Amino acid sequence: MNAPLKVTVTGAAGQIAYSLLFRIAKGDVFGPKQPIILQMLEITPAMGALEGVAMELQDCALPLLHGMVLTDDANTGFDGANWAFLVGAFPRKAGMDRSDLIGKNAGIFSVQGKAINSRAASDIRVLVVGNPANTNALITMSNAPDVPRERFTAMTRLDHNRSVSMLAGKAGANVADVRQLTVWGNHSNTMVPDLTYCYIGRQKALNAVGKRWYSKEFVPTIAGRGAAVIKARGASSAASAANAAIDHVHDWAQGTRKNDWVSMSVPSDGSYGAPEGVIFSFPCTCPGDGTYQIVQGLELGEDIKAGIKATGDELLAERAVVAELL
Amino acid sequence: MNAPLKVTVTGAAGQIAYSLLFRIAKGDVFGPKQPIILQMLEITPAMGALEGVAMELQDCALPLLHGMVLTDDANTGFDGANWAFLVGAFPRKAGMDRSDLIGKNAGIFSVQGKAINSRAASDIRVLVVGNPANTNALITMSNAPDVPRERFTAMTRLDHNRSVSMLAGKAGANVADVRQLTVWGNHSNTMVPDLTYCYIGRQKALNAVGKRWYSKEFVPTIAGRGAAVIKARGASSAASAANAAIDHVHDWAQGTRKNDWVSMSVPSDGSYGAPEGVIFSFPCTCPGDGTYQIVQGLELGEDIKAGIKATGDELLAERAVVAELL
Repeated sequence: MNAPLKVTVTGAAGQIAYSLLFRIAKGDVFGPKQPIILQMLEITPAMGALEGVAMELQDCALPLLHGMVLTDDANTGFDGANWAFLVGAFPRKAGMDRSDLIGKNAGIFSVQGKAINSRAASDIRVLVVGNPANTNALITMSNAPDVPRERFTAMTRLDHNRSVSMLAGKAGANVADVRQLTVWGNHSNTMVPDLTYCYIGRQKALNAVGKRWYSKEFVPTIAGRGAAVIKARGASSAASAANAAIDHVHDWAQGTRKNDWVSMSVPSDGSYGAPEGVIFSFPCTCPGDGTYQIVQGLELGEDIKAGIKATGDELLAERAVVAELL
Repeated sequence: MNAPLKVTVTGAAGQIAYSLLFRIAKGDVFGPKQPIILQMLEITPAMGALEGVAMELQDCALPLLHGMVLTDDANTGFDGANWAFLVGAFPRKAGMDRSDLIGKNAGIFSVQGKAINSRAASDIRVLVVGNPANTNALITMSNAPDVPRERFTAMTRLDHNRSVSMLAGKAGANVADVRQLTVWGNHSNTMVPDLTYCYIGRQKALNAVGKRWYSKEFVPTIAGRGAAVIKARGASSAASAANAAIDHVHDWAQGTRKNDWVSMSVPSDGSYGAPEGVIFSFPCTCPGDGTYQIVQGLELGEDIKAGIKATGDELLAERAVVAELL
């Protein structure tokens, strides 16, 4: 049995965490032989509810769950953390515009970045789920200057999984047969779902579904999927967001499939014309040792390049809003 | 790859199902090679929310999820079903006493029993989660006379898991080291958590924790655990209930551990002085072929026998309330 991993989850009494924590503690992310200590961070008014969540975790009798820490203090929450899921974020309220939202969250994530910098384990790796995820990840990274930049990522895996599933549904194929789909850019409605190198089984995906369906049905449906779920369910995506977070960290920690890649928002190195200095979603492969590589050498059409420019410009504009925190 | 199993979940837009469906579809119950078709039953006003849940299931891109049926019609919901999780139940509202609650639920479960009888697959197996679970299971079974009685069970696994976890916590042991714990009787506060044959590692559990702690701390805490979770979380146990349902059906389908047993509410054969004609929780072992056996030959003390009598009397009283539906 390995030594326990310390896994921090923020927003731990919220809806996404309620789907996420139990699956982490069961072994879905780090495997069936890896004990876990869950370090659950919440705001002070939610500590009572968090106690209830901890009781339920206890009531599952999970052999891998070797300990729990419940705290409203970021330094305690990130103390010795090996992995962190930053799920909690300030929600958008009526009358707030996007820059208000970014500003509110910047305060949260700069504090958490500083706590990661001073308290986390030397191998800390971070996934930001709370929106605006890419810019929140940038703020976190910028406030943790002693941690290597490549340890900070944001989640575009939900967009990726939605795209894979919609494509498989259209083609009458299993989701496992879809490979090499990419979501570029920001986790927002400017993201670019790209089928240029995507296959469904042995067939090129664009040939299987047609360019017209791709541009008229697929791209707008994926961009509007979050809002459609809210409309139907009366609440935002939680279980599917948690599932995507699990997939992201699972693949980062344990490796991506052969002959496939996943979409991860990572610090941009300027590949494919993406702006540097932002957290940008690229096609990535992971060998299974906690590293990832941006897939290189793809040739892209003019429409995808234009989309990458637009979503990159949006990320630069978000960065400008929080410039004083970077 | 096996042929898909049809798995019916009722109350599919509710909180327990929201934790349960994703884990069934991921393979947590029937294994990583068993495709699933989820047949999700809800009441008509919840069909919109159920559509949102189905969208999120789709958005997880789960290779084992080969299909979904969304319906408010019991015959459609149970059509060809191999396994059924009866989660949906009429909730207790202010001013209702227990017999009101039993009566309200009796209507739901008699309809579902008839649908199971006429439409389910010949190998149908049923777990009732919705409360009062034991009596709801009895009504379901009684309305499905063509289905072998032993296919109907109710959930005491949450009580069992809570007991295992509390005991391990007290002894400073891992939950996996706790064996042969039994919860007897009704899933209500008359249930009897029994450590007579329970071990923690190689030590008898009662010696490890002491009889005084067992009777003064353990039994009342387990009996009041559901209410304590509601008080802390502001909502009843959902993820832990779903986890227990997964454990119950997983072990029933795939087998219990060697040198251990689990607590399952099953049709009473009169063992240990339990009344016949009710669904009663016994220690059970499962070989992994969809059958179970009640553990025989245990010698019990007078306190446990008295507890079995009291919880059995409660089940007989519940049965009397719904006599005309049996």
